[in-house]
Amino acid sequence: MSKLKTMTLEWTGDAVIFIDQRKLPLEEVYVKCTNHFDTFTAIKDMIVRGAPAIGASAAFGYVLGAKEFRGELGSEKGIDHMKKVKEKLASSRPTAVNLFWALERMHKTFLENASSDNTIDILEKEALAIAFEDIEVNMAIGRNGSELLRDGDTVLTHCNAGALATVDYGTALGVIRAAVEAGKRISVFADETRPYLQGARLTAWELMKDGIDVTLISDNMAGWVMSQGKIDAVVVGADRIAANGDVANKIGTYSVAVLAQRHGIPFYVAAPLSTIDLSTPTGKEIPIEERSHKEITHVQGIQVAPHNVKCYNPAFDVTPWNLVTGIITEKGVVRPPYNVTLKNLFD
Amino acid sequence: MSKLKTMTLEWTGDAVIFIDQRKLPLEEVYVKCTNHFDTFTAIKDMIVRGAPAIGASAAFGYVLGAKEFRGELGSEKGIDHMKKVKEKLASSRPTAVNLFWALERMHKTFLENASSDNTIDILEKEALAIAFEDIEVNMAIGRNGSELLRDGDTVLTHCNAGALATVDYGTALGVIRAAVEAGKRISVFADETRPYLQGARLTAWELMKDGIDVTLISDNMAGWVMSQGKIDAVVVGADRIAANGDVANKIGTYSVAVLAQRHGIPFYVAAPLSTIDLSTPTGKEIPIEERSHKEITHVQGIQVAPHNVKCYNPAFDVTPWNLVTGIITEKGVVRPPYNVTLKNLFD
Repeated sequence: MSKLKTMTLEWTGDAVIFIDQRKLPLEEVYVKCTNHFDTFTAIKDMIVRGAPAIGASAAFGYVLGAKEFRGELGSEKGIDHMKKVKEKLASSRPTAVNLFWALERMHKTFLENASSDNTIDILEKEALAIAFEDIEVNMAIGRNGSELLRDGDTVLTHCNAGALATVDYGTALGVIRAAVEAGKRISVFADETRPYLQGARLTAWELMKDGIDVTLISDNMAGWVMSQGKIDAVVVGADRIAANGDVANKIGTYSVAVLAQRHGIPFYVAAPLSTIDLSTPTGKEIPIEERSHKEITHVQGIQVAPHNVKCYNPAFDVTPWNLVTGIITEKGVVRPPYNVTLKNLFD
Repeated sequence: MSKLKTMTLEWTGDAVIFIDQRKLPLEEVYVKCTNHFDTFTAIKDMIVRGAPAIGASAAFGYVLGAKEFRGELGSEKGIDHMKKVKEKLASSRPTAVNLFWALERMHKTFLENASSDNTIDILEKEALAIAFEDIEVNMAIGRNGSELLRDGDTVLTHCNAGALATVDYGTALGVIRAAVEAGKRISVFADETRPYLQGARLTAWELMKDGIDVTLISDNMAGWVMSQGKIDAVVVGADRIAANGDVANKIGTYSVAVLAQRHGIPFYVAAPLSTIDLSTPTGKEIPIEERSHKEITHVQGIQVAPHNVKCYNPAFDVTPWNLVTGIITEKGVVRPPYNVTLKNLFD
């Protein structure tokens, strides 16, 4: 049986193993999930995060769900079980559309092959296809996006749209990697990205591992850094892109986009087609996850705010399409009017 | 001899005692300074911070410096000693102009009374005058600013321009306090204000102590909160205001101002005249302090970023005058053209 091992996850054939992204960069701890409940928890608790990574993880969780069933998967009970597996995994996080996309793809494959002799093998193959395709897609995004960057450019990025947010290579960081691989000298400013600190903990870590020049700043420094002329382009990832080009991404992305516009800096979103949700007309219809107040009041377990302080903790925001200079996909870079150009990508 | 005790500091007659703002809100620890070197360190290490609080603290440090001298203060040696005391204290932090303003005022008083029988008493009286005036000034700023807020308004503030940033009452939070005291229902959104977390640790703490409704957010949420129509006004403090109305304040203020402008939200700066520096023509001439990278890589001593990651940590930024709706001072609210209206305040 096929296997897969990247920085983000490993598929062993009967388990999916994640690097615990909550512990990075100081500890490299691995979490092994042998059933779909554990995979659900790994996604919900952000052991694994990042829209494309969540999609592939859910696909492997779906395979584990199939393996759990004792009996005929093609029976009414089996089909009902797999529906519940799909729904459980889909309930882990609400905003990233790749999760639902991957689960729909797995479930469709299941329904088409429920009565086969080797349903589980077919499902495993499909999950691996999702994962391997993600890597290929990211490399294509990288190639397409790298042409937007010039030798000597400094790129600001927010959150982590890197290898750790995908199966491998990354979307926004894939663009940077591809530009560097093409021989361009690229420097990066990474927003630390409170409250979860994906920029400080993950983006800085994986860029340093690759020897790419990175400077860490707190989120509120991005505007000042731009005003000093230090930034040539912004590249971020996405958790869901609506049909009109509105982009849901990590909280703070909207502010970065407003600041980029003020300073005449191009603002690019790098994302696979699986992140584009044509069934969601605009950003207004994208559900925004609110997470625990403890993410604000505590940093790595240390309390930094008064007891019982009221908090607001939206995990994502929506950047309106008219602040987005271009969307970098595996099929090329599209620009406004997005309601036309995004649709064309699927034709 | 006169004494003074507020939330921020206490003058005992032969020592200045600070609440250690680095330990708030979880611990209330006090640090006693009996000489001007310790006072220098307290300012430099941000045991006490906030432009007006720094000014008053330096004034008390100057008195302690005078008390240290064995011999005639009016002698050449004494005058030389006090010049060194002034310079030492002035070197603690570069951006807040109140520090230099208070030290100049103390040094002028010293030079005028160096040969007096009771020089030290005169200096102590002057330092106490600076401190008591600060409280009065803040209450006047509060009264003037409170008229800009309507019953039911929600105010976003950044960093801590509160009682803890002044001798008492606060500038930006003084405006909110005065509005609440005038019977208006005011809610506050407080940016946590990385890297030093003055919003999470100090603003949330002192507003909760006063029973004022406060919601804590991370800095990168401010734009999203504004876009949802939750904010009616922004009120922040200042560390230095140039003659043209450019405002140096805590890093991130500039981003908040850009976001406020995009959303048509008035952006007010609350500051005493001692923060206005007519000798600095524009924000370009204001020195911006860069602080230790450890403030970014560590939170309350806990490392949150990779070993040896490169950082950039400017402690302040400059908001250009044309993003500032009004400057709230003890003499009234001034509006553009600031190069005229600020100058008029001193006539």
